Formats: sequence, C-alpha cells, structure tokens
Amino acid sequence: MAEDVIFELNEIFHVKARLGIMTLLISFEEMDFNGLKSKLGLTDGNLGAHLRVLEDAGYIKIIKGYKGKRPHTTCRITEKGSEAFQDYLKQLENLIKMARAENK
Amino acid sequence: MAEDVIFELNEIFHVKARLGIMTLLISFEEMDFNGLKSKLGLTDGNLGAHLRVLEDAGYIKIIKGYKGKRPHTTCRITEKGSEAFQDYLKQLENLIKMARAENK
Repeated sequence: MAEDVIFELNEIFHVKARLGIMTLLISFEEMDFNGLKSKLGLTDGNLGAHLRVLEDAGYIKIIKGYKGKRPHTTCRITEKGSEAFQDYLKQLENLIKMARAENK
Repeated sequence: MAEDVIFELNEIFHVKARLGIMTLLISFEEMDFNGLKSKLGLTDGNLGAHLRVLEDAGYIKIIKGYKGKRPHTTCRITEKGSEAFQDYLKQLENLIKMARAENK
C-alpha cells in the first residue's frame, strides 16, 4: 500500500542536501568539503551537519588531513552507503510506479 | 549535472508526510482528515501543518463541512497539484537515472 512504500523511504537520504551529497560522491568518488560546499550552495555549518548524519549512519567516510598547512577534509561513500543508496533509489522507483498506477 | 537535478526537486513534495498525503489523495481521490491521520500516523497538528503547506501552494483543496453535528474536513488534489506532482515524479526519475549512470 502507498503508505507502506512511503514509510520505508530512507529518511537519511530523503533530504535534498544529503541526496545532493550522495549523488556527487557517487559521481566523483571522492570530494573535499569545499567542493561539496560550492556545488551544493550550503553553508559550512549546514554541510557539516549533513555530513555528520551520513557518517553516523556509516554511509560515508570523512577523512581529515592537511593540504600543505591547511586542514583539508575529504569525503567518500562507504560500501554500506553505496548499498543503502541503491536501495533508496529502488524505493523511489516503487513509489513512482505506485503513484502513477493509482492515478488512472 | 547532478546538483541541478536535485535543486529542481519540488521541496513541497519532497517531505515524507506530504508525499504520503499526495499519494493517498491520488489513490482515493478524496480523503477526510481522520482517514489521512490514521493512514499516515501523524498527529492532528502535524497533519494540519502539512495540509496547509499543500493548500497554500494550490495543490490540494480542503473542504470544511459537517457530518451530522461534527465538523468534517475533506481533502482533494487540484488540477495544479496533480500536474505538479507528475512533474515531481519525473524529477525523481531523472535523479534515479543519473545516480545510476554515475555509479559505474
């Protein structure tokens, strides 16, 4: 039923900013904090908070290092994150199918 | 590009509860407040707030009447809402395609 498909939607991904982070990380494999920030138009605090949610879920790895003398943060998707994201895409597909079938 | 597809996502629909409301209203054409509430497991206040967002956008019509002596609120999708929701489903489809293509 409609409501079950919707309840199943992974809430961690179902937020525009985090969807953006995941899609960019899938596309570029690895991205640094500033790259994500400028592509997604988020503030430092906002991006940091969304990255933490993804990291806490085990979906991305945040690697803190240095580039010359400056701190440099890089992010990449984990295997768990990649699998969960593919599941989320499947959930979205089911939702689309259902919403279309019911609109007859 | 990934980020453009995500920026385009209709924020009004891209929230689980409102996605639930829209999918139920497409499926049942008309639903009353209590029906939506029980199907979606929302509180009165929460459901009311989401319905107001959809109504303000012109996507649903909220009809306040009486059933016997009790107030009875019914909701249905407007033509504008139905068109916008189909557009949103298309946006989701594009996003899925892109996320998959980039995951090679």
